[in-house]
This record gives sequence, structure tokens and C-alpha cells, in this order.
Amino acid sequence: MRARNLALVLGEVNSRGPVTRAALAEITGLTKTTVSKLVADLIDAGLVVETGAVRDGERGRPGVVVRVSGEHVASVGLEINVDYLAVRVVDLSRTVRLRRTQAVDNRFAQPGDVVALLRDLALKAVDDAVDMGLRVVGGVLAVPGPVDQRTGTVHNAPNLGWREVPVAALLELPFPVQVENEANLAALGELWFGSGLSDFLHVSGEIGIGAGLVVRGSLFQGSHGYAGELGHVVVSPDGPACRCGGRGCLEQYAGQDALAAATGLAGTDVQATTTGNGSRAAAAAGGGAQAATGGTTAGDISRIVARLQAQDPAALAACERAGWALGVALSSAINLVDPDTIVLGGIYGPLFPWIGEAVTATLTSRLGQMRDAVPPVVVSRLGTEAAALGAAGQVIQRVIADPAALLQT
Amino acid sequence: MRARNLALVLGEVNSRGPVTRAALAEITGLTKTTVSKLVADLIDAGLVVETGAVRDGERGRPGVVVRVSGEHVASVGLEINVDYLAVRVVDLSRTVRLRRTQAVDNRFAQPGDVVALLRDLALKAVDDAVDMGLRVVGGVLAVPGPVDQRTGTVHNAPNLGWREVPVAALLELPFPVQVENEANLAALGELWFGSGLSDFLHVSGEIGIGAGLVVRGSLFQGSHGYAGELGHVVVSPDGPACRCGGRGCLEQYAGQDALAAATGLAGTDVQATTTGNGSRAAAAAGGGAQAATGGTTAGDISRIVARLQAQDPAALAACERAGWALGVALSSAINLVDPDTIVLGGIYGPLFPWIGEAVTATLTSRLGQMRDAVPPVVVSRLGTEAAALGAAGQVIQRVIADPAALLQT
Repeated sequence: MRARNLALVLGEVNSRGPVTRAALAEITGLTKTTVSKLVADLIDAGLVVETGAVRDGERGRPGVVVRVSGEHVASVGLEINVDYLAVRVVDLSRTVRLRRTQAVDNRFAQPGDVVALLRDLALKAVDDAVDMGLRVVGGVLAVPGPVDQRTGTVHNAPNLGWREVPVAALLELPFPVQVENEANLAALGELWFGSGLSDFLHVSGEIGIGAGLVVRGSLFQGSHGYAGELGHVVVSPDGPACRCGGRGCLEQYAGQDALAAATGLAGTDVQATTTGNGSRAAAAAGGGAQAATGGTTAGDISRIVARLQAQDPAALAACERAGWALGVALSSAINLVDPDTIVLGGIYGPLFPWIGEAVTATLTSRLGQMRDAVPPVVVSRLGTEAAALGAAGQVIQRVIADPAALLQT
Repeated sequence: MRARNLALVLGEVNSRGPVTRAALAEITGLTKTTVSKLVADLIDAGLVVETGAVRDGERGRPGVVVRVSGEHVASVGLEINVDYLAVRVVDLSRTVRLRRTQAVDNRFAQPGDVVALLRDLALKAVDDAVDMGLRVVGGVLAVPGPVDQRTGTVHNAPNLGWREVPVAALLELPFPVQVENEANLAALGELWFGSGLSDFLHVSGEIGIGAGLVVRGSLFQGSHGYAGELGHVVVSPDGPACRCGGRGCLEQYAGQDALAAATGLAGTDVQATTTGNGSRAAAAAGGGAQAATGGTTAGDISRIVARLQAQDPAALAACERAGWALGVALSSAINLVDPDTIVLGGIYGPLFPWIGEAVTATLTSRLGQMRDAVPPVVVSRLGTEAAALGAAGQVIQRVIADPAALLQT
């Protein structure tokens, strides 16, 4: 009961902004004595703080207001992606306090090595946060693939070459870390730190293509947390073979590798040589061949953009085709999940000028007769920061939803 | 505050079954005096009823328990479909008290005529309910197409030939009636009156193909309530033209008209001649031609089943193709929304022996490598009753969620 009331009071402080104890009693239906005791506990834990007196409109008496404290409790958002590691420290008032990003090439790296590098980056950021008076109470790690959230195991991150990697256990940080899918967290990043929309389908364009659906401010995750695999929505049932076992999946038309290949920049089959643990030894043995056969690299998107800017016909055709395929897959998604807005993130940010029109044209031709309006297609403003910010924000949400868990530690 | 507490108490009585006032106070955190007053109000309104004394485990003192009353308040579930009208009266304890179904052919009927027929059927059922001591407090009407729930207007029900029909206003029943999509309500019917699953995608196979997604006991409706248009998920982007403006939508492979046409039983384009208001006059004028070109009828599915039982090659091939297409569209749906189980309803009930295997085989070939297990594909046991039961259950849910609204009337 106390845990529920702590959450009730902190939730109201969080959603309403500065508020008096008297108003909290009125809103929650709890007695003023109970509210005062709960607020005292929340202040002791550094979760809320008194912030001067305001006049209470109803009665005209001045009251001390409390608000969520940005000065004590903080969270860490972590991200492992193909070409960078990211750490973000965010305080309880959702202000980003520290940003650390390190460019790497994780395509051929051992999970243990990647995790060790991320741990160093995170621990340094946490030290810096301590110097700022912040206490990091938890973290969430974004990875590009489906995750067992219960055990913190990455089932399959093909662009990293990871399968069944217990990344939470490997990370060994001095606070609990949960592991979640990058596409879901990027959608939450867009929700909490983005352009202010609360109903949208966020598309994370990478080598794989994930999506996160936010409806009325909540992330939809499906029955097992695996919703949003937009990259394997069928564009054409007899199309190119996909690593998922299907054919003609969106990823084969609009994923980063597919775009690079169609532009004539690189091979598309890097993941086939780095399944299993994608070990550094295997990379060392096969690295030359890999480079020779043209594995895509972190610079691919900027190389594609350069070709597009130079009006390269292959690059333009690749984007036209990707935009069409994205439109076909999104029309299925719109029919199934009815998003209000489509937000294109990841590689579709820099590529938007060349794919946006084809996406919208395809949506209009396929949906125009059924619907009053086709959902608008817009670009995310967060770029690659979305997932790490969503990860940090996820911890904040959990603290707000269950402050008692923190009070007990 | 009182409204919230009434809902809190009734919700606990509803979810926990018979419970003492003392236990309710403990569960809700409200005082015993408050709980007693709220329970008295709920008893006065006929929503809960005392049902004898039980021994309270903790203290050993006997207490009077209350439970949701099945004796007073009831709801009506209504359905307009192509070949039948249905009315179900369900009491607050979710017992089905009255079933009324009338076979009709609504394909060429005026909305006003259809609604008048349904009104008569509903009013007779309500009279019978009154004789049983029940008070019908509200209704929900299931229609086969997207609906503006706010105004009770059917946007587009192509198999009825309806466009922008303000059916709630036409119905004029002596209690509020909301209008909702048949596919959503059928999924809720499956949830509340079906096989006990609480995580599934229910597929309503009719002339159109709708789906309703239930996750942890809640219906997912998307941002505007139009989620679940499985019939317009892309099977093949260059496939047959669809009435939605797209090409190769699932409906063109696995809808009732498509199946009948592929079996050689009927034309597939009835809706093209009955758009607009699909008036009886138009039907009278064009009825003969319609019959001559072979409009599908209510008996189509039994005729298809008869051909299947006779091993008719065209019918078998049509089902094989429909099962494959359903598998392709469902693989996109599974990737996007991650349902636990697929429940096939509507025409896929009688057709299941001939399509089930192709559905599962297609899902396995497309999803097998990505997932530990492909979601099981099962048949609904409710048949055509699912939507009307879901409609009645929807009213019950609303009463439980907001009993204060009822107390004020």
C-alpha cells in the first residue's frame, strides 16, 4: 500500500509539475498527514525537492510546492550499435546531463570486447555524474535486435553477428542494467526527447529496419516484446531471399546493406560470414576477404548521400526503390496498427530528401481510397541519439512508477 | 473522487469475485466507512448484491460478501452483417441471457430498412429481458467496417454497400448505443466468451477480412481505432486490384468473394455495383443482372465447403492459395504486432480443414529462422456469434469501469 501511494504521489508530482502537499492530498484522496509523510520519504530519497512557496488558488494560503528533483537521482542510457557506442546520463527531471559517444567498428568484434569498451565509457560517465552530485540508480542498454528482457540476453543481432549473448551479465556495472531492443528505445527517445508527438510509428533504419509504435504516449510491444519487426514485413512474396528465411522482406529493399549494394557500393551479405559469435579471430582470418568482397562500413550512408548529391543514377534508383518498398511495408503497417504519424529515423534521416516522396506517393496510392488522410511521414530530429536517450528515459519512467524499489536500496 | 472510488470498488468486486467489505477496504486503501457507503450505492444501483457470509481468513470473523449482480443490469450486443442480424442480452455477471438471430440478405438493402429490422429485433429482446427482471442500460452495435465511434457513423462497409451511414442515430433505441467495428468486437467476444485466451490475433474472415489484436486482455485499436485491417495487408504488390485502391491485398486472395470466384461459384465484384447507399431500388433495378453475373450469397461458404468435401480441384486450389496468402499477410502481422496465438474466425472456421495447413506451412517457412516458435493457429469456437457477444461484453466493461455514470441516470 505504501509503495502504491509513494508511486501515486510521485506520479502526480511528475505529471503536474510543482504542486503543494495540500493539492496532492486533494488529487490523490489521501490524507494530508499521509501525503506529508510520503513526500518526506521522497525528499529523503532525493526524488523530489521543495522549491519555494506558491499561493494556493482556492484558499489563498501560501503553500510550499514540491517538484521532481533533477539534482540527485540519474539514469544511464547505453547503446551498442554497429559503428558507435553511446552513453547518456539523464537526471530525474529528464535533463540530459552527459553525452559520451565513441566511434568503433563492432561488425567483427567479440561481444566481450565490445562490452568491456562500453563498460569503460559508462564508468567514466558515471564518475563524472558523481562529480556533479548525481547518483546513477540504473541503466538500460539498447541493442540492435530482439532481446530476452528477463535475462538480458540478446537473441540475435545480425548486424553485430551476435546470437544468444548474455550482454547484461557481461556488462557488470555497479547498478542494474536492463537490455532492450534499439528500435523500441528509439521510439521512446522520440517520445520523451523528440518533437513532442505522442502517437507515431518510429522507423529505425539501419542494416536492419526496426519500428517502435507509440500510442497515446505508450510503447506497444506485443505479447512477447518482439513487435515492430518492420524489416521483415513482406514487400513482395517472391522477392530476394532474406536472412530471416523469408523472401522479399522490406530489409532486402530498404536496409542499409541493400541500399549500398544497389548503389554499387558494397556487398550485402556481411552477416552471413559473421553469424555465431562473429569472433575477432574469424574476422582476422576472413577480414581481408571480407574487405575485398566489400563489407559495408560506417561510412556507407555518407557515401550513398555523396552519390545522391552527385545525381548518381544507381543511387537515385536505389532510393526510389527503397522508398517504394518502405511505402508498401508501411501501408501494411498502417492497415494493421493505425499509427497517427510515421517518423523516419536512423539512415532515413540523411536519405529523406531522396526517399520521402516515394514513400508518401506509395502510401497515397495504396491507402488514399480507404482513408480520409494518409498519415504524414516526417523525419526524426534525434538522429542516432534516439535509442540511448530512450534507454535513459526508460529508467526514469521506472523510478517514477515504483519509487519504493529505490527507497529500499 | 467518488466516481473513481466507485469504479475502484466495483472493479475489485468484479475481478476478485465475492469479497467482504473489510477485504475491499484493505485492498483499496479506503476506509471501511467509505467502502460501506460505496457498496451501498452500488447495491442501490443493482450493480452488486450481498450473497451471504463467509469467514474472513485473517481475523476469523464472519463477514457478508458482495459480488457483481447478474439480476438487474444488462447490456445488449447488436450485429448487422451481410446475411444475418443478431441480438444478445448479457447480464452484468457476463451470463448470456437472450439470443436472437434473424437470417436476412442485407447485401442490397437500404440502411434504414436494415436498421428498422434490427430495432424491432432489439426491442423485442429488451422486452423479454424486462420480463426477466433485467434493465438494459446500453448497447453496442457491430458493423463490418471502420466506424467513427464518436458519432456512431459507419465510414465504409463495402459488403453492405454502406458509406457514411449514421447508424447510431438511425437506430433510436431507448438507451445509448455505440457503434464499433465487427472485427474488434469479435476479438473481444473471443476474449470474454471464447476459449480463455488473453493474448491473440483474432481474424474475422468475411467478404472483407478484419482482425482484432488482444494483448494481455486488452484490445489494441491503434491511434484512431482503425487498427486490424488485415484484409488490406499486402500479399503481392502487383497482385489483383483491390477496392481499397491498392493491389494484391489479402482480401483479393482469401476474402469470401475471392474464394467463391476462384472456386468458380460467383462473381467477385458485387460491391462495385452497390457502393453509395446500395439502395433497394438499385438492387431491384440491377438485381437480375446481379444474379446473372453471380453475386455471392449467404450460402457461398456452405457451397464452397460442399465442393471441398467432393475434392473439387478448383475449390482445393482456392483454399491452398488463400491459406498461403493468409500466411504471407499473417507473417507481416506477426513481425509487426507479435501476437501469441492466431485465432481464425468467420469463414475460416468451416474452411479450416482446407486452409489451416497452408497457413501454418507459410508461417513456418517465413518466420521459422527468426523465432523459437511460430504462433499456433487455432479456430474460434464462437463462430458468427463472436461479434454480438463482444458488443454486449463491451457495455458490461464500461459499466464496471464507470459505474458512477449509471448511478447518475
